[in-house]
Amino acid sequence: MRQLDLSKAFTLIEPGPVVLVTTHDGEKDNIMTISWTMVMDFTPVFAITTGEWNHSFAALRQNRECVIAIPTVDLLDKVIGIGTSSGADTNKFAKFKLTPVPARLVRPSLIKECLANIECKVIDIVEKHNIVVLEAVAAHIDSARKEKRTVHAVGDGTFIVDGRKIDRKKMMASKLPAGI
Amino acid sequence: MRQLDLSKAFTLIEPGPVVLVTTHDGEKDNIMTISWTMVMDFTPVFAITTGEWNHSFAALRQNRECVIAIPTVDLLDKVIGIGTSSGADTNKFAKFKLTPVPARLVRPSLIKECLANIECKVIDIVEKHNIVVLEAVAAHIDSARKEKRTVHAVGDGTFIVDGRKIDRKKMMASKLPAGI
Repeated sequence: MRQLDLSKAFTLIEPGPVVLVTTHDGEKDNIMTISWTMVMDFTPVFAITTGEWNHSFAALRQNRECVIAIPTVDLLDKVIGIGTSSGADTNKFAKFKLTPVPARLVRPSLIKECLANIECKVIDIVEKHNIVVLEAVAAHIDSARKEKRTVHAVGDGTFIVDGRKIDRKKMMASKLPAGI
Repeated sequence: MRQLDLSKAFTLIEPGPVVLVTTHDGEKDNIMTISWTMVMDFTPVFAITTGEWNHSFAALRQNRECVIAIPTVDLLDKVIGIGTSSGADTNKFAKFKLTPVPARLVRPSLIKECLANIECKVIDIVEKHNIVVLEAVAAHIDSARKEKRTVHAVGDGTFIVDGRKIDRKKMMASKLPAGI
């Protein structure tokens, strides 16, 4: 994995893929699967929605750090396994044969098998809505990886795989942030 | 367009497509293009991020209603045109040859040409983060439409079209909301 310029990190979340979020509770790593994410600005700042029902939420609230890892379609069954089991009784890195890699600026681990990893700090929790606001502090991408297609949860148990890409850079020029 | 059960409406937003949001300022309709959306619960409640820089935001704040319309890939150039022009000086329904259809429970219009339309009420605005929290009150879908593929903004001027669908309903059974 090589470092990815932070100004480009929002492009990993903007398309709305299912992501993995790693946390660390002071003793051990955990992973959750989420689809409820949103870009909030280009620097980048992200929102995720999670709450008390989620075992990772306590670690996120206490440790105030996480890593957003971007899995690709070849990892879908692991992603679903992670999303349908609980860190309360499962070491998910071991169970799903994923490799934790030390992050640069936060305590939770990167996931080696993912296309990209974004190290984040919690900058706010909007308690009323269970929204966790995250600021990215470092990002990494595995450019050598052949499979780059992410998946999008529909919410009914089906998933949509990335299809073809359409280039509209010229039409979009006035709206793109600098350096992208 | 036929009515869509509200309990299924979150499945239109969960995959993270680019959406159009219509507002009404008391005098006229407007449309904006956004990619910064998030499901917050299945009832459904959604978040969108927008702010003072956006002409629609004033109408949304004042009128507290909008429609989230889901465009498909055949509408991409209109979607980009809407996103790169301002309602301050443009009648976007006219300019982009889209047909406003009266909504059932809110004042902003549905967009006839879209795959689906979700009527929403603003239930909160988290000022600190420019997050608008929306509750859906009615939803409509054009099931007869052949083109159903949505598009996902990458944020660099490229867009990813929906590819194939993978069924994991059995694996996901424990996590799906009732009636989906």
